[in-house]
Amino acid sequence: MPDEVDPIGDKPLSGIKIVDLTRVLAGPYCTMILADHGARVIKVERPPGGDDSRHFGSYGHGRSAYFDSVNRNKESIALDLRSAPDREVFEELLADADVLTENFRPGVMRRLGYGWPELHARFPSLIHGSVSGFGGEGSPHRDRPAYDMVVQGMSGMMSVTGQPGGPPTRVGVSVGDLAAGLFLTVGITMSLLRRARTGVGNQVDIAMLDCQLALLEYSIGRHLTTGETPGPVGTYRPAVPPPFGSFRTADGYLVIAAGNDKLFAALCTALGRPDLAQDSRFVQGEARKDHEPALQREIEALLAQAGTGHWCAVLGAAGVPCGPINTVDRMLADPHVAARSMLVDVDGGGALPKVVGTPIKFSDVADLTRVTAAPDLDQDRARILAELAARTGGVREWS
Amino acid sequence: MPDEVDPIGDKPLSGIKIVDLTRVLAGPYCTMILADHGARVIKVERPPGGDDSRHFGSYGHGRSAYFDSVNRNKESIALDLRSAPDREVFEELLADADVLTENFRPGVMRRLGYGWPELHARFPSLIHGSVSGFGGEGSPHRDRPAYDMVVQGMSGMMSVTGQPGGPPTRVGVSVGDLAAGLFLTVGITMSLLRRARTGVGNQVDIAMLDCQLALLEYSIGRHLTTGETPGPVGTYRPAVPPPFGSFRTADGYLVIAAGNDKLFAALCTALGRPDLAQDSRFVQGEARKDHEPALQREIEALLAQAGTGHWCAVLGAAGVPCGPINTVDRMLADPHVAARSMLVDVDGGGALPKVVGTPIKFSDVADLTRVTAAPDLDQDRARILAELAARTGGVREWS
Repeated sequence: MPDEVDPIGDKPLSGIKIVDLTRVLAGPYCTMILADHGARVIKVERPPGGDDSRHFGSYGHGRSAYFDSVNRNKESIALDLRSAPDREVFEELLADADVLTENFRPGVMRRLGYGWPELHARFPSLIHGSVSGFGGEGSPHRDRPAYDMVVQGMSGMMSVTGQPGGPPTRVGVSVGDLAAGLFLTVGITMSLLRRARTGVGNQVDIAMLDCQLALLEYSIGRHLTTGETPGPVGTYRPAVPPPFGSFRTADGYLVIAAGNDKLFAALCTALGRPDLAQDSRFVQGEARKDHEPALQREIEALLAQAGTGHWCAVLGAAGVPCGPINTVDRMLADPHVAARSMLVDVDGGGALPKVVGTPIKFSDVADLTRVTAAPDLDQDRARILAELAARTGGVREWS
Repeated sequence: MPDEVDPIGDKPLSGIKIVDLTRVLAGPYCTMILADHGARVIKVERPPGGDDSRHFGSYGHGRSAYFDSVNRNKESIALDLRSAPDREVFEELLADADVLTENFRPGVMRRLGYGWPELHARFPSLIHGSVSGFGGEGSPHRDRPAYDMVVQGMSGMMSVTGQPGGPPTRVGVSVGDLAAGLFLTVGITMSLLRRARTGVGNQVDIAMLDCQLALLEYSIGRHLTTGETPGPVGTYRPAVPPPFGSFRTADGYLVIAAGNDKLFAALCTALGRPDLAQDSRFVQGEARKDHEPALQREIEALLAQAGTGHWCAVLGAAGVPCGPINTVDRMLADPHVAARSMLVDVDGGGALPKVVGTPIKFSDVADLTRVTAAPDLDQDRARILAELAARTGGVREWS
């Protein structure tokens, strides 16, 4: 083991340099996580417009909230990878990079002359992280364009989301992109760990569709075991006896998770109807499954007497697992958010006064409480080129 | 850099030993990913019943599909951490472990005498990965029980999922648990990387609620920029002009992602109605936003003439991004699944003939195509104790 110990406050990825060709969401979400934890991320954008998502609404102060939220803590340089001088800059960047990330369609990197065999021969310690809809290798769909919604639809994710009997429903966040970004983050970090042993880089090939399948493990397991084809489950968990789901109150909804007889009895008492727990329709878990709609009606009739805040306090005090169904504004007002640094300040302005913090908290790293605003296109060009000139001993002028 | 290079086929986490106290889903999903990529995971279960999810339906061959799907490739030993002889075994396991994982409620580890200060003093290179509903530190909710549905509800995730105007809807997979498992995987792998530099372990503290906020970054960014409170978005992406969403066909649904004028024109031609692209209601993106319901009706009237498979072929050939909305069984029948090893064989039986593979594919590691079945409770006891005896020089008999 090494003798030197990092000073407290040094981040897990300090010293790691990432050259980032990714655009829009899946790739940038990955490099955002890496940057939040200490990696230097140099975003290489295509002139003249840069990352497409710079032009996606909503806007604040003339900038895209979409772009700004996932590109904080990054630098930007505009390079045209079809131009010889820009390719020279790009290759010089790769020469001391640890990781190259991209989310082009399969084949684009090869056509640019940066296929994995070429990259690996020239930069043997470089790790190449790639994300695409169907993966770089193997899939019969690999050349098809993919969007979040396409992989949410194909995978079965939309088929299990929604109200029972209703249409398939998209998850309200771009889980097709976000899950791919997370699995790419895991893969790159694992490759960095392996390279610490071997000195050799490798390629990580992530397909958005594969990542949706990885999230569907239980729906798939249930299908393979029972032969049933799961449909939209609403807020009801098939494996657990009710009441376990969403319930309407006088002013909104709350979640109650009282999945066993003891919690159900505590719930009935807290609602002022201890007799319900003795009702023959509800006295035992299997019976409650058989009379689930009646149980829902009984509970909602009682909940209609007051609002979500009241019931969360009353049921919580009785030890019944529950919680409000918040809209985003109400969640942000909860003291949890500040206590866990989940909304952080942005230095340098941009669309957003604050952005979501990181959910990965380390005991020996200070909480992330400030980030640097997402870069303007090409804003770090002069400094990056000066660094390259210094490294190459000034024998070459970069422009 | 080290001189030795791992042989091809060695996995990124080969040599890493994990002592795993986690139960049910968030923690086991994390250690499943770590085990899939080479870590040895010793699942320490509480006697007599072990992991609660061993008793969750659906069942196959008398075993839980829920348990079996996320516990493949793990070993099991039953230890009661309140009994002195079992604590001795547990501590001997920790003595050469790299990582300890748990998802108890905050305070349980401390009451067992394994709070982070004690663990770190005794096992300075050990990494402690913890996941709970609201985190080990800081949150006013930290002592409350949390379930997937509680954090989906509180975070706002359910408020943005569902049909427009309809009730808040749970995501059809346990994204509250799964996202927490993924962020814990990232955190542990980052800590292993840091420890390779420093030799010192740390604690990773993951809150399920924080992870939902991290997935909601765009909904939160939109709210902070515009002041709007996002509601259920259905299958419609507010930032992109239609047609971009889900459409009914003669036998199901498909997704069409034709978010610009050129793709819309290609779609109209492929549907046999090139005139629609000239219709004043639809001729330009902003106009299509204003007439979105009329556009949906026009397109669905045409799609009603044939089934999803026909339209995917026709639109795909015309270069229009699209895909079927599959149920799980249809997804599993797609040749993509076999081509990418996303359904793998299980050695040793159990509830499931096959389980979902890993979406993380490395260029220099053979694809995961077989896994070992999830363990019976305590099945590896004798072998694990014999290893401890051998390591401690046989001075102590373990039982």
